[in-house]
Amino acid sequence: MNKENSYITDEIHEECGVLGVYDLDGNDVLSTLYYGLFALQHRGQESCGIAVSDTNGPKGKVLSCKGMGLISEVCTDESLENLKGNIGVGHVRYSGAGENSIHNTQPLVLNYIKGTLCIAQNGSIINTEELREELEYTGAIFQTTIDTEVIAYHIARERLTSKTVEEAVTKAMKKLVGAYSLVIMSPRKLIGARDPFGFHPLCIGRKGSSYILASETAALNAVDAEFVRDVLPGEVVMINKDGIYSDTSLCTNNHARCIFEYIYFARPDSHIDGVSVYNSRIMAGRILAQTNPVEADVVVGVPDSGNAAALGYALESGIPFGMAFVKNSYVGRTFIKPKQAARTSSVRIKLNVLPEVVEGKRVVMIDDSIVRGTTCAKIVKMLKKAGATEVHVRISSPPFLYPCYYGTDVPTGDQLIARNNTIDQIRQMIGADSLGYLALDRLNDIIGKGMGYCDACFTGNYPTKLPKCVSKEEKK
Amino acid sequence: MNKENSYITDEIHEECGVLGVYDLDGNDVLSTLYYGLFALQHRGQESCGIAVSDTNGPKGKVLSCKGMGLISEVCTDESLENLKGNIGVGHVRYSGAGENSIHNTQPLVLNYIKGTLCIAQNGSIINTEELREELEYTGAIFQTTIDTEVIAYHIARERLTSKTVEEAVTKAMKKLVGAYSLVIMSPRKLIGARDPFGFHPLCIGRKGSSYILASETAALNAVDAEFVRDVLPGEVVMINKDGIYSDTSLCTNNHARCIFEYIYFARPDSHIDGVSVYNSRIMAGRILAQTNPVEADVVVGVPDSGNAAALGYALESGIPFGMAFVKNSYVGRTFIKPKQAARTSSVRIKLNVLPEVVEGKRVVMIDDSIVRGTTCAKIVKMLKKAGATEVHVRISSPPFLYPCYYGTDVPTGDQLIARNNTIDQIRQMIGADSLGYLALDRLNDIIGKGMGYCDACFTGNYPTKLPKCVSKEEKK
Amino acid sequence: MNKENSYITDEIHEECGVLGVYDLDGNDVLSTLYYGLFALQHRGQESCGIAVSDTNGPKGKVLSCKGMGLISEVCTDESLENLKGNIGVGHVRYSGAGENSIHNTQPLVLNYIKGTLCIAQNGSIINTEELREELEYTGAIFQTTIDTEVIAYHIARERLTSKTVEEAVTKAMKKLVGAYSLVIMSPRKLIGARDPFGFHPLCIGRKGSSYILASETAALNAVDAEFVRDVLPGEVVMINKDGIYSDTSLCTNNHARCIFEYIYFARPDSHIDGVSVYNSRIMAGRILAQTNPVEADVVVGVPDSGNAAALGYALESGIPFGMAFVKNSYVGRTFIKPKQAARTSSVRIKLNVLPEVVEGKRVVMIDDSIVRGTTCAKIVKMLKKAGATEVHVRISSPPFLYPCYYGTDVPTGDQLIARNNTIDQIRQMIGADSLGYLALDRLNDIIGKGMGYCDACFTGNYPTKLPKCVSKEEKK
Amino acid sequence: MNKENSYITDEIHEECGVLGVYDLDGNDVLSTLYYGLFALQHRGQESCGIAVSDTNGPKGKVLSCKGMGLISEVCTDESLENLKGNIGVGHVRYSGAGENSIHNTQPLVLNYIKGTLCIAQNGSIINTEELREELEYTGAIFQTTIDTEVIAYHIARERLTSKTVEEAVTKAMKKLVGAYSLVIMSPRKLIGARDPFGFHPLCIGRKGSSYILASETAALNAVDAEFVRDVLPGEVVMINKDGIYSDTSLCTNNHARCIFEYIYFARPDSHIDGVSVYNSRIMAGRILAQTNPVEADVVVGVPDSGNAAALGYALESGIPFGMAFVKNSYVGRTFIKPKQAARTSSVRIKLNVLPEVVEGKRVVMIDDSIVRGTTCAKIVKMLKKAGATEVHVRISSPPFLYPCYYGTDVPTGDQLIARNNTIDQIRQMIGADSLGYLALDRLNDIIGKGMGYCDACFTGNYPTKLPKCVSKEEKK
Repeated sequence: MNKENSYITDEIHEECGVLGVYDLDGNDVLSTLYYGLFALQHRGQESCGIAVSDTNGPKGKVLSCKGMGLISEVCTDESLENLKGNIGVGHVRYSGAGENSIHNTQPLVLNYIKGTLCIAQNGSIINTEELREELEYTGAIFQTTIDTEVIAYHIARERLTSKTVEEAVTKAMKKLVGAYSLVIMSPRKLIGARDPFGFHPLCIGRKGSSYILASETAALNAVDAEFVRDVLPGEVVMINKDGIYSDTSLCTNNHARCIFEYIYFARPDSHIDGVSVYNSRIMAGRILAQTNPVEADVVVGVPDSGNAAALGYALESGIPFGMAFVKNSYVGRTFIKPKQAARTSSVRIKLNVLPEVVEGKRVVMIDDSIVRGTTCAKIVKMLKKAGATEVHVRISSPPFLYPCYYGTDVPTGDQLIARNNTIDQIRQMIGADSLGYLALDRLNDIIGKGMGYCDACFTGNYPTKLPKCVSKEEKK
Repeated sequence: MNKENSYITDEIHEECGVLGVYDLDGNDVLSTLYYGLFALQHRGQESCGIAVSDTNGPKGKVLSCKGMGLISEVCTDESLENLKGNIGVGHVRYSGAGENSIHNTQPLVLNYIKGTLCIAQNGSIINTEELREELEYTGAIFQTTIDTEVIAYHIARERLTSKTVEEAVTKAMKKLVGAYSLVIMSPRKLIGARDPFGFHPLCIGRKGSSYILASETAALNAVDAEFVRDVLPGEVVMINKDGIYSDTSLCTNNHARCIFEYIYFARPDSHIDGVSVYNSRIMAGRILAQTNPVEADVVVGVPDSGNAAALGYALESGIPFGMAFVKNSYVGRTFIKPKQAARTSSVRIKLNVLPEVVEGKRVVMIDDSIVRGTTCAKIVKMLKKAGATEVHVRISSPPFLYPCYYGTDVPTGDQLIARNNTIDQIRQMIGADSLGYLALDRLNDIIGKGMGYCDACFTGNYPTKLPKCVSKEEKK
Repeated sequence: MNKENSYITDEIHEECGVLGVYDLDGNDVLSTLYYGLFALQHRGQESCGIAVSDTNGPKGKVLSCKGMGLISEVCTDESLENLKGNIGVGHVRYSGAGENSIHNTQPLVLNYIKGTLCIAQNGSIINTEELREELEYTGAIFQTTIDTEVIAYHIARERLTSKTVEEAVTKAMKKLVGAYSLVIMSPRKLIGARDPFGFHPLCIGRKGSSYILASETAALNAVDAEFVRDVLPGEVVMINKDGIYSDTSLCTNNHARCIFEYIYFARPDSHIDGVSVYNSRIMAGRILAQTNPVEADVVVGVPDSGNAAALGYALESGIPFGMAFVKNSYVGRTFIKPKQAARTSSVRIKLNVLPEVVEGKRVVMIDDSIVRGTTCAKIVKMLKKAGATEVHVRISSPPFLYPCYYGTDVPTGDQLIARNNTIDQIRQMIGADSLGYLALDRLNDIIGKGMGYCDACFTGNYPTKLPKCVSKEEKK
Repeated sequence: MNKENSYITDEIHEECGVLGVYDLDGNDVLSTLYYGLFALQHRGQESCGIAVSDTNGPKGKVLSCKGMGLISEVCTDESLENLKGNIGVGHVRYSGAGENSIHNTQPLVLNYIKGTLCIAQNGSIINTEELREELEYTGAIFQTTIDTEVIAYHIARERLTSKTVEEAVTKAMKKLVGAYSLVIMSPRKLIGARDPFGFHPLCIGRKGSSYILASETAALNAVDAEFVRDVLPGEVVMINKDGIYSDTSLCTNNHARCIFEYIYFARPDSHIDGVSVYNSRIMAGRILAQTNPVEADVVVGVPDSGNAAALGYALESGIPFGMAFVKNSYVGRTFIKPKQAARTSSVRIKLNVLPEVVEGKRVVMIDDSIVRGTTCAKIVKMLKKAGATEVHVRISSPPFLYPCYYGTDVPTGDQLIARNNTIDQIRQMIGADSLGYLALDRLNDIIGKGMGYCDACFTGNYPTKLPKCVSKEEKK
């Protein structure tokens, strides 16, 4: 197979989504897990998994189903046979750290001194190498290459001297540097934890007798659950038959929310830490209109993420909004072309332009980012071919300049078009008549003043130390 | 498997898409076939197939690959192994007439007196029963239950007394009553034919040395081909190494284009017989705004087909356009739920509402049709739950009252909500504050005066006689 | 995939097995079909199929399941879902005539003037080309390349002027030249027919209220059915709710049973036309001992088919019988090696020699045939390497010299080692110390005087005319 | 799926086969691994795996392919893509200890302080529970339920204080109680180890520049390798680029070879510790003839394992040997019946009797064991139905009375027919005219005086302490 990400040259990926469900009345949670994960599928399409247990069954007996592919491919009638339980965790994955293979699928299901433990993680640990070495020096063996196994080991070790598993989680977190939103299932408890910087989201929902932990609130909506609240950065929540308990001892006010969750990763119908993702995109569009105005006839967004910002731009500028693109919904984010089908532009297969919308018009085209620039150039070209007289590209984020170590796959160094080119050079390379990025100093406006966020990919100001293996060179 | 069409209760389906490619210079056409069919996938997701031949190879040797599922599932590296040729036909299918099984996949590949013939059809023959019986009375055997086999037989018989295969096609067409757009591959020729009423579209494109026949112009765009012209209703075109030949002897001025191709089936980026599908939807929205005005704060379209009409409504009415729905792109039109995932509202899984767009607002919601009413009711409810103070439903087509016998699967009789209910009763059933349909007498406005169209599903005025098996009762 | 028949260079194949079941009391016959076909799997491993109907259900509604591979691969829980009925036919296939593809799987399921018809065939028609052409000249279309479709057409045509389907079968048979054992299911009847020469076997069994038609009696044993009788060469039997009816109008005394059914194809536990296959092999071994005696210490048979003849040789000669070979039972007749596993001797993987049996001994090695000689040479070498001081090869059939046109795949011309080499040259090529074949004039002794048989592959005396396409050259 | 072992009621299973290959010249070993495992398939059909590395590539980079099913199902072109290396290990498994799931497939591939380690094991550890607990008390986590993971952990821990990995293996072995034949791949070494009792076999072979470690010598034959020698009970061998090194420090003279390897598990063409498996079976038959003589007309063996003993009985008694059974080679040891195929006797499907061999005769029927007695009873009945006038059953092992804790799945307690019935009662239950078992005191004669063996399943004399979890009750 000639596997290719359809927008491969110009897309960045979130690395994971996590989900946990605990039904206090003993009802089966499989359906909630299935549809909840379905709603998080955009956070990872390479592999996925579900693990369930029955708090009233044989203690700690875990049944799981994991595999490469989408939820709908992995969780079939056949593979779900016998999967039943009133507590469970699920995971969708795009392989960032840890190679893309069946061994690395999550949730990680394991036995330790207190029985079973199932862990699903979103994020990336900075000091995983040191932690792994430390464990190896005491004789540990590793069967995967994912950070989650390192976290699991540390929880298991801390458990030896802790009264509860949640205490062990908190103690283990003190050793972890980096980004992690965790959902953990122990035989009688569902635990959620979020790193103190709060890089990636994690929220709590409720539906009848079920508590739900999820990467995004959209997963709560999908299963008709109510949003209860976000897990705080640094918080460990434990849900058992008696309710929710919270340990906020690691919470600080020093937050570093991934700004790209708002700009691109998260679903527009999610709220993260109280902020509507949709509104933040509308706002990004409005700011772009303020800071990068242009005389034009129509504003169009590159689907799907560019549409909200385009609408914001249109609202702010008064230029009419239009939908210039028709998307082929049978192309997933990951699209496998048979070898025999000679190489063809993936952009062309995925998108078509409606000349009716752009012909003879000056077009403002809004996209969320430019990575390598190749896709952007193709789309500009398609617009012009369809009759656009001018194409003014507006990007609802600042230029990418630095790699991300917190769980997204922004490419490194020279692959980033903005690294070695001025904005005008980029404009020429993509064939646009003008090009404007969101200004760095307006980032905070899109999520609200006072919300700490991480903009390291734009600034190189990493909120944590960097991985041991990163040379000075690579960072910049 | 608990197979279910996601919008099962309120969706109608097109039954097929066809494609043919002939490269005069002998270049391989597999890639063009593959991506062209990909662009037609919306016309049928149940099965598909490709057949190719080499005009310079062993005469009439055909290689094919057919199966249940999407193009990306059926046409894999493994199944396409060895498929090579400079002439080929392809098909995507939603099973209307003829059960849904592997035996009924197209293109139909056969041998007859003059070698091989491969036929792909979009549409439905009215007199198939009579034609089949007639053949059986001379000893014919049938291995499928599709109309295409009956057509093939008649072509084979006419071929005995015709000088060319295209002549045989024309003669056979004289016996066929109903809707058919055909693409036929004979060892050295590619033939396209469209029924004299022109129910379904068929167009001609060109890319370098390749001629292309396709159900929609969007397939031409997808492979970077130029649109040459539409095949005329009643026309037979034959493409061989010397160019295109046309037989218009069956053409008349009595056309009956399926109006629903414009309203819903076709891609908005296609043009059918010179009319932009996108523009016709914009126009439907405009007309709705003129004929069914309402005071409101935002106009939203039910994705994907409702968006263009919503934009039209917004433009005409001056009410702002909004995008209230987030669609889960991992749910196909056909969505298989594992049995273990207890029944959940398919609408909920597929769509979520953005409260940011509708909260506290009077909403005009545009959809293309109401079949049974259940989906519409759920969406109205979702909007109200998200805070819409009023929901005014506008439908960009007249009420469905009669079954279709020309290749779409509009349900029969009592399943149609409009059959037994007044508009106000329907309004109540779907929970809307007001409900308006496109008026019958404005239908012609959306495609342009003088374009003959079929509105039998709204009026019961069928342009042809009806199938023998249809009782008077059933028709009405 | 690097598909390879494990004994590819020295094996010949039967081309099919057929089965039919009709339960007069309306009981489901799926289980009988499944296990009956299982017992016939040795007659064809490339594809298989089952079709069933319910004589009390909607008239002529047929459900079928066909595919490439073994019964156990094709007939799975999923594919058999809903297959129910009290009448059914089944087929296993090795592709002889007609390419190896899904289109050519049997039973052929079709509709004709009288409803449905399902046909399964074992054998090969000589005049298929003429019959096909004749049909094409009246406008017939062919969707497969198997003889069975031609037979079906003729039955359908004859049916127009016949009172019953069995009469049509008889009339059609008058036009067919060649080898065929047919099992046919019409909505209310099960029909069996065998060509007048009786090339291939077909027998009738009974189990409770079920009548069974099967290629071999071993299939009757497998389902605990009683053997009733063989279908006579030239006979048409029809089973309906009133019992069995027989039409022997085409029967003659001029029979041409395939002698290789006894020597190799059929299971040793089958009886064909009253003759025990096992006994005929024992007898072949005895005759070899009489005509090709040798001083030796042990007699061994090449598994599996050589064992019975080896036992016969041992009994006749007084030389002890031994089992020198260990077979790897995880290698099927058809064995797919991954490309990555570099080419290795298939013989070695399949067979190992027990030095304990042959070391220091003079060995008589019995095999059923030598085709190209390569496998035989490898086995002789293995025996010598294991310490055999002498290897005397005895073949329980005469040398292959001519191709078979009746449904087995004896290779043509120069691929046959005996065609261009004397017996002593062959002996040298396979490295044996002596070599003896069964004498032509003793063939009749192995099945009993008076039983007409076909020995065309040894003598070139074909009982019928040859296919039009066979040149004089090729025959010899 | 209605999965069923075909002889489920009367079969016992070996639990695993192991293989390792190291090519000193850097040649790829995949082909040797593949065909070697193929020859060991009889030792485990539930799951299998291969892991390879390149001693000249990136240090310790391991590529693996594991899955449920046979070698030919798991190791396909697709799954072996990219698997290349000059060192590798393989495993076939029947799930004994540790549930039957993908998580428990071997080889176990892991990372530890010194890089990668891949371990394949045959056998069962008695003190696995204690060892696991001990590890958990220091914070270990377990991702499988197989003993091999416990062994791996101990090797990793011992490695911290050892100079070499082979030293760590030796140290770890001191803690292990039970049966284990191990093949271990470290980045630059191939290691083999066998428990001091030598329960299960392990041998060394050589083919050109490749060293091979294998469970049975038959695997060496299959890849045309020479047998070098057996790994001694208690020995650790290490193969690196400089040759083979041996550590015999744990070797003793107190051996407990599994006697059932000779009687049933191993292939007859294997030698274990210098003893021919074939000869030991011949000898078992001879002893049975001496100790349990009977007047009869023919001796037959239940295939496949009963044949050699039957030949021994025939040779010793002078009664003619016959082959009464025809086996359906399309039924594997594990056979999945579709649900739809109503329950049918698996014995009947697998075996058929040749009346020609037994009709009117007094038959001695040799089998290797009786577990529950049901299969034996069915076969006796089949022989009588085929006309045998008397059936005298002779079993080439003593009666099973006790469970096995060393890696075979002899059922426990009351499922064993011999536990609660006298020999005469068993005779009656199976319908035999007489019944004789191999005498306990003659066991040593079949493998040779002085060879220590384990007969715990017959005597309850376990050579080691028993698992903590086994109650006194259960042992007896």
